[in-house]
Amino acid sequence: MPVTLKDVAQRAGVSRSAVSRTFTEGASVSPKTRAKVERAAADLGYAPSALASALSTGRTKLIGLVVSNFHNPLFLEVFDRFTTGLQARGLRPLLVNLTGETDPEASVRMLRQYSVDGVIVASSTLPPSFAGAFRKAGLPVVHSFGRWTAAPETHVVGIDNRECGRLAARTLIERGYRRVAFLGGPEAATSTEDRLAGFLDGLTDAPVPGVMTSFAQGYTFEAGRAEMQRLIAAGPPADAYFCGDDVLSIGALSALREAGFSVPGDVGLIGLNDMQIAGWQNIDLTTIRQPVNAIIDASIELALATIEDPDRLPEARLFACHIVERGTLRPIS
Amino acid sequence: MPVTLKDVAQRAGVSRSAVSRTFTEGASVSPKTRAKVERAAADLGYAPSALASALSTGRTKLIGLVVSNFHNPLFLEVFDRFTTGLQARGLRPLLVNLTGETDPEASVRMLRQYSVDGVIVASSTLPPSFAGAFRKAGLPVVHSFGRWTAAPETHVVGIDNRECGRLAARTLIERGYRRVAFLGGPEAATSTEDRLAGFLDGLTDAPVPGVMTSFAQGYTFEAGRAEMQRLIAAGPPADAYFCGDDVLSIGALSALREAGFSVPGDVGLIGLNDMQIAGWQNIDLTTIRQPVNAIIDASIELALATIEDPDRLPEARLFACHIVERGTLRPIS
Repeated sequence: MPVTLKDVAQRAGVSRSAVSRTFTEGASVSPKTRAKVERAAADLGYAPSALASALSTGRTKLIGLVVSNFHNPLFLEVFDRFTTGLQARGLRPLLVNLTGETDPEASVRMLRQYSVDGVIVASSTLPPSFAGAFRKAGLPVVHSFGRWTAAPETHVVGIDNRECGRLAARTLIERGYRRVAFLGGPEAATSTEDRLAGFLDGLTDAPVPGVMTSFAQGYTFEAGRAEMQRLIAAGPPADAYFCGDDVLSIGALSALREAGFSVPGDVGLIGLNDMQIAGWQNIDLTTIRQPVNAIIDASIELALATIEDPDRLPEARLFACHIVERGTLRPIS
Repeated sequence: MPVTLKDVAQRAGVSRSAVSRTFTEGASVSPKTRAKVERAAADLGYAPSALASALSTGRTKLIGLVVSNFHNPLFLEVFDRFTTGLQARGLRPLLVNLTGETDPEASVRMLRQYSVDGVIVASSTLPPSFAGAFRKAGLPVVHSFGRWTAAPETHVVGIDNRECGRLAARTLIERGYRRVAFLGGPEAATSTEDRLAGFLDGLTDAPVPGVMTSFAQGYTFEAGRAEMQRLIAAGPPADAYFCGDDVLSIGALSALREAGFSVPGDVGLIGLNDMQIAGWQNIDLTTIRQPVNAIIDASIELALATIEDPDRLPEARLFACHIVERGTLRPIS
């Protein structure tokens, strides 16, 4: 038999309205009444329902996390941080799976139906039109892992992918690699474009021949493996690859070793993200660390601030990346 | 400016109540009126909100997925299937992170606050008291990956872990392994107990010496690796291990190879789950397949059926497992 607001009011010896106000954020209630209500609620095991609160505040406390790739183990870390971060604030984490969805308007309709207070789009491959469509529909939205611009129209939290590309270039050059190449994620993704642009920029003055570029079909193991197999079949591989991300790198690593190449002896690889699996000793991937926890925390803060103040100006929050030394690149020569 | 029910009623030339009934499951409305309303709704881009629907039906259409381990990549597949399965039915997937939570009552209060219609507990390590507490609190609940009993008090969907243990025993014996061992997950988990009991049962009549048993601290890479390192330090390893699950197996595999043992030359390993990473060619883990998609689909069906009929008798739905041949066990001798 669920405990009701009325039960709490009776036990506390206060009005039902006083109980309601105690559990409504920002509502006025005296410290004495609040203490009585909270004691009675604890005694009875009463928890105000989110539905009741939604009725009085017009807010559902549901925050949607929009994801489009469930083949990248990085997202396990994203889900963990997102759920604990929201739970700690008394909010409810709703998961929105947009795998294969190409129509931003259909996604807007779905999110409207879901009655979320705000949305975090966690994707470096969904085009900016998705976050843009949510914003135009009046939904507070933050694009995590999205492209940063100097004049953002939507909140963006992530890293400077161009700077990461430059960091990868410097790292390969200082280790003496000369025939270097880019094996990116999906060609149309802004993350791919920016990482490549930064990589090429970082190689401008380096003594390297033409930089080979190719693109995997997605940020997945299978896509990275298939693309590296294609490259190997077409001719000798480069001396070192900057790969689109970690899961794709691990696919490329598997293809190289299977074809008899030693890594890092014959070919070097560097990934991006530093997801947990990159650190597994039987993977041991040298990579660039993207601070996922900091990005998710900042995304939640920004989403909540925008729910409070819908007119808040769009902003970008960028976090620095750094090299994580492991076993797929040779040491500095 | 969001489109309202009133806008749709005006455009369709019907009453507001007719629009409301069109979007309320099971409510009576003529086909002609329904067609008018649906056309008007499509023209205007109207989507009835879940909040409005919750008011009229008393249901939030929120289904909670309770998870306690975000270090096991298997759960990425669980999240993918759970979200697509619910979305296809117009329901809303809420993620509940119980990592580190030990108090079932605290979880009940949290879920009450969340106003979910039903709960799927996806864990083989959370004690049955969690699902039991949800049930006693009147929440429709299904325990996925839980222990099956002949007289279940809560719906259970999963595999027969004892039968899996027997399958592992038969598999090792028919490949000629004699010094066999069990490297389980957390000792207190029902999945560990049952897999071990079945494994020992399957070895009863086999020509094997005493079976060594040990337990990792969790279903994680690090726990499997640490436990295998401890075993190696204590003496020569067994000829083959039945490991608690895949991610733990991969940790054990990493420790064995690092210590100079060849797998499967010196030591054989068999896991359980067949998560995607087990099939990565640079992991190539022989394992027992647990049909995750079928388990999640059946869990959703059972949860929805119980929301419709709260007096539905508890039942168990079990799915068969089978061996997936890969590279960490030697072939049948």
